[in-house]
Amino acid sequence: MNCDKPMRLLLTLQYLGTHYAGWQTQSNATGVQQVIEEALATLFGSSVRIHGAGRTDSGVHAAAQRAHFDAPSTIPPRGLLLGINQLLPADIRVTHVEEVADDFHARFDATSKTYAYRIWNAEVADVFAAETHAHVAKTLDETVMRDAAARLVGEHDFAIFTVADPEVSSTVRTVSAIDLVRDGEAITLTISADGFLRYMVRRIAGSLIEIGRGKLDPARLREEARWTAPSKGLTLVDVSYHRHSR
Amino acid sequence: MNCDKPMRLLLTLQYLGTHYAGWQTQSNATGVQQVIEEALATLFGSSVRIHGAGRTDSGVHAAAQRAHFDAPSTIPPRGLLLGINQLLPADIRVTHVEEVADDFHARFDATSKTYAYRIWNAEVADVFAAETHAHVAKTLDETVMRDAAARLVGEHDFAIFTVADPEVSSTVRTVSAIDLVRDGEAITLTISADGFLRYMVRRIAGSLIEIGRGKLDPARLREEARWTAPSKGLTLVDVSYHRHSR
Repeated sequence: MNCDKPMRLLLTLQYLGTHYAGWQTQSNATGVQQVIEEALATLFGSSVRIHGAGRTDSGVHAAAQRAHFDAPSTIPPRGLLLGINQLLPADIRVTHVEEVADDFHARFDATSKTYAYRIWNAEVADVFAAETHAHVAKTLDETVMRDAAARLVGEHDFAIFTVADPEVSSTVRTVSAIDLVRDGEAITLTISADGFLRYMVRRIAGSLIEIGRGKLDPARLREEARWTAPSKGLTLVDVSYHRHSR
Repeated sequence: MNCDKPMRLLLTLQYLGTHYAGWQTQSNATGVQQVIEEALATLFGSSVRIHGAGRTDSGVHAAAQRAHFDAPSTIPPRGLLLGINQLLPADIRVTHVEEVADDFHARFDATSKTYAYRIWNAEVADVFAAETHAHVAKTLDETVMRDAAARLVGEHDFAIFTVADPEVSSTVRTVSAIDLVRDGEAITLTISADGFLRYMVRRIAGSLIEIGRGKLDPARLREEARWTAPSKGLTLVDVSYHRHSR
């Protein structure tokens, strides 16, 4: 007889994607999901399956990815937080643990996600930014880039910024906010939407970089995708929920 | 007959010390100096010896280390900058090259150096700060730490913050400025002096952390060194010269 009340927990996660296959394990490399599942299995003594808010590609980072799972036994959220970080490698951290309703789903209940794309724009790359910023040597005009980016706000078909995927029924997404700021040599593009297609932020970043270089007409941003910017510049920075958010 | 005018060049260097033995090569690992010398040898086609402003220990980073060398043949500083960065690994960059007088010496002409010691002060470490910040989980009182640090300004004997070294004739140094600021979870200690003894900043940081935890009386800062803080929190941020500085 099991007297434990079933317990669904929501994790907030940080990771540096540099050394991982992405969220999911691939044939050639381990995914972040598997590393966390193995740590949870050690902690609980039985296998655990976690459900992420979304997949991130190989090399992409997260400042606040979310994932839920059903705990095989009751555990205080704080105990889980301290315990799991002892088991995880230094490039993956659980930053928050909260109990959620039994029908909460990290992916299906997400109402909005926010990604940052970071560029180090200087002749010489920076060693401290090398893992998290794409290096662009030629000076970019961030004002022209920001004005162009504003054209993406609203509901649009983002088909040119992704690849064909039979599992995706529509390529229409709603961008709720987009911003692009320069702080010295660092340029950060921040984009929030109800959902993202594969490569969408990296292809938008690629086109904006071409616009910032003067190689693509800003008016053609939604007509012509030029380039998929490197994965290391991309970070998932937030996942929003109507309920149970931090 | 060699018509080239001898040319002494001063490099400004950045490096992430994580994967190096420090500035100097050790029996078990390569030093940053050797990596740069090998890149210069490839560029010039003959061996080159560089002279750093100071040694940094294994795991210590630099935002602006300096080193001079005599170029075996004339080269435009800009050509050297672009060429050498193509040959260096991503965790070492040359950020500036300038021609200096034939008798200029990166070490002996340095009038002041500045180091930063960075602490990530939160229950959970941060993956993006993991290589450059020491993690301290217990909340530190930065006001008490800052007040204590101020006691180090001026000319003092820093013998307790170093190890015996027959090559060092005096352990008296003059600290010209010291500051400690908190920005969210990050605490940065910045210290400028006419010179630094081995482990000096890491031992000062170690004592200040003990003070911030309430484990060491601030009045005993100059009497009792408790702990050598981890190398990964330390970064050489500046070397000053009366002449030829950037």
